[in-house]
Amino acid sequence: MITVLAGGVGGAKLVDGLAETIGDEELRVIVNTADDEEFFGLHVSPDIDTIVYTLAGIADREKGWGIEGDTYRCLEMLERYGLETWFKIGDMDFATHIYRTLMLRRGMRLSEVTDTIAKRLGIRHRIMPMTDDRVRTVVVTESERLSFQEYFVEKRGEVRVKSVIYEGAEEAEPCREVIPSIMDSRAVVIAPSNPILSIGPILALRGVRQALRKTKAVRVGVTPIIGGRAVKGPADRLMRDLGIEPSAASVARLYSDILDLFIIDEVDASMAGEASKYVPRCIATNTLMQTRQDRARLATYILTAINEIRESHQKY
Amino acid sequence: MITVLAGGVGGAKLVDGLAETIGDEELRVIVNTADDEEFFGLHVSPDIDTIVYTLAGIADREKGWGIEGDTYRCLEMLERYGLETWFKIGDMDFATHIYRTLMLRRGMRLSEVTDTIAKRLGIRHRIMPMTDDRVRTVVVTESERLSFQEYFVEKRGEVRVKSVIYEGAEEAEPCREVIPSIMDSRAVVIAPSNPILSIGPILALRGVRQALRKTKAVRVGVTPIIGGRAVKGPADRLMRDLGIEPSAASVARLYSDILDLFIIDEVDASMAGEASKYVPRCIATNTLMQTRQDRARLATYILTAINEIRESHQKY
Repeated sequence: MITVLAGGVGGAKLVDGLAETIGDEELRVIVNTADDEEFFGLHVSPDIDTIVYTLAGIADREKGWGIEGDTYRCLEMLERYGLETWFKIGDMDFATHIYRTLMLRRGMRLSEVTDTIAKRLGIRHRIMPMTDDRVRTVVVTESERLSFQEYFVEKRGEVRVKSVIYEGAEEAEPCREVIPSIMDSRAVVIAPSNPILSIGPILALRGVRQALRKTKAVRVGVTPIIGGRAVKGPADRLMRDLGIEPSAASVARLYSDILDLFIIDEVDASMAGEASKYVPRCIATNTLMQTRQDRARLATYILTAINEIRESHQKY
Repeated sequence: MITVLAGGVGGAKLVDGLAETIGDEELRVIVNTADDEEFFGLHVSPDIDTIVYTLAGIADREKGWGIEGDTYRCLEMLERYGLETWFKIGDMDFATHIYRTLMLRRGMRLSEVTDTIAKRLGIRHRIMPMTDDRVRTVVVTESERLSFQEYFVEKRGEVRVKSVIYEGAEEAEPCREVIPSIMDSRAVVIAPSNPILSIGPILALRGVRQALRKTKAVRVGVTPIIGGRAVKGPADRLMRDLGIEPSAASVARLYSDILDLFIIDEVDASMAGEASKYVPRCIATNTLMQTRQDRARLATYILTAINEIRESHQKY
């Protein structure tokens, strides 16, 4: 069993690569839900949906969110009714939110709903929200407090951030299988997701960081920063706003207590030495996942590295 | 001002004809909401929507419900998630239910939401739910109690009905403008809608029947039964189940205390005498509304009849 901690698009791509190459082994994906939000009265879980749609093979690859070939008739009509529609939801995508909202109102937990959706879409791996409780990322600027979606989608990340708060993280319980998955897996992979906005909320949950410190699993991180820039999203700008130099080495530092191996991109190969100050091993490869082949190649690279580390552990 | 009491399709067609021919005069439509139901956690008001979509010029004329050219991607996805999808909701149609549900949850009244939707779709006339309270038609058979939608859509009306109950009608308040509209209009028209399932719930509301008895408005009814058969829907079968001969005369009898004029179809012209036992005047014309021209012609016929009665009232 391999467990992955993941946010949205970057996480989804790596999880997809792992699912392709892992064979019969079980994959468990612990997904950030601190970006969940209510739109039009419906509970939207953007990161879960991106991973579910990707594993189900129905994700829109161009856009990185939503369902391939989806249409926007419902959203256009909602706009006609005067609602704000900066958050784009397609007609098929709406079904997911309608279904989730209905089931939550009927008393199902988010983890159960996620499980049902994944199974119905033919996914054999386990996708679990980090928590069934409410945790919300709040992006604090000079003048306002923004939800993640307001910051990322509405403002396009074009505001200066003073701090980031994971509201509710202290009181929230991780989902029942989160800690056991970290403890019992042979490897835990931190996907190339935003370390502050996607992985940060998962690590902020009670017991998660400690479990990552204690587990016997091989712990591998993949950089979301290549050549000082985020592959997607606002991670670089956000890190700079928070006084962190946006580099692979900075990410290694953020994960210094919870990784055995950090994978940086080949363009940053010269940074391996610096990153090794924080993480025991640091290796460089092409981490950019533009095609499905890229995903599988990176996944194979990670699985091989995991096996090598396990073997070396067994030797000594 | 002319007020219409209406159910779904038959009501919508006549209201559309009246809207076309009435000129600058205000039309107020009091609509049955006893068929409202929650589908997928969303509040659906089928009769209101049929009338709104028809007046907005976006109704699907073939089907008689929903929006012209609508697609079913959301519904197909909900089916994939394992939900029952016998109640067909198109992608654009979903927006109406999502919007309505959201606004009701925010504390708006159904009448306010209806008003906003109608205005946003460019309708200048007033469409009002019969009540903002919850009234539900229950169709009682030998073995079960069915909601209207279960009876009409799921079972296609193919069960034997023992009785019909308007649950909640005694406690419900008519919407604020319902009684004033009936009292202050120059004419009240009862549309060719199902007298038991569509008009019945409106008449069952506190004060409505009394207002219809007292008003100085010219009160005109149009038969929904032609040649012993319902133009659309299960009115004929249902009337028979309830021990009422399905005929225009029977409808006249159901409305005997609240009509000045009853319009029957020309194929039933020989029944005018019998119907006149219940309603002071009974006239026959082609009441079938297959084309938009038919709608306008029937509306003109009704408006002319109303004027004649008003003139004769003034004379004597």
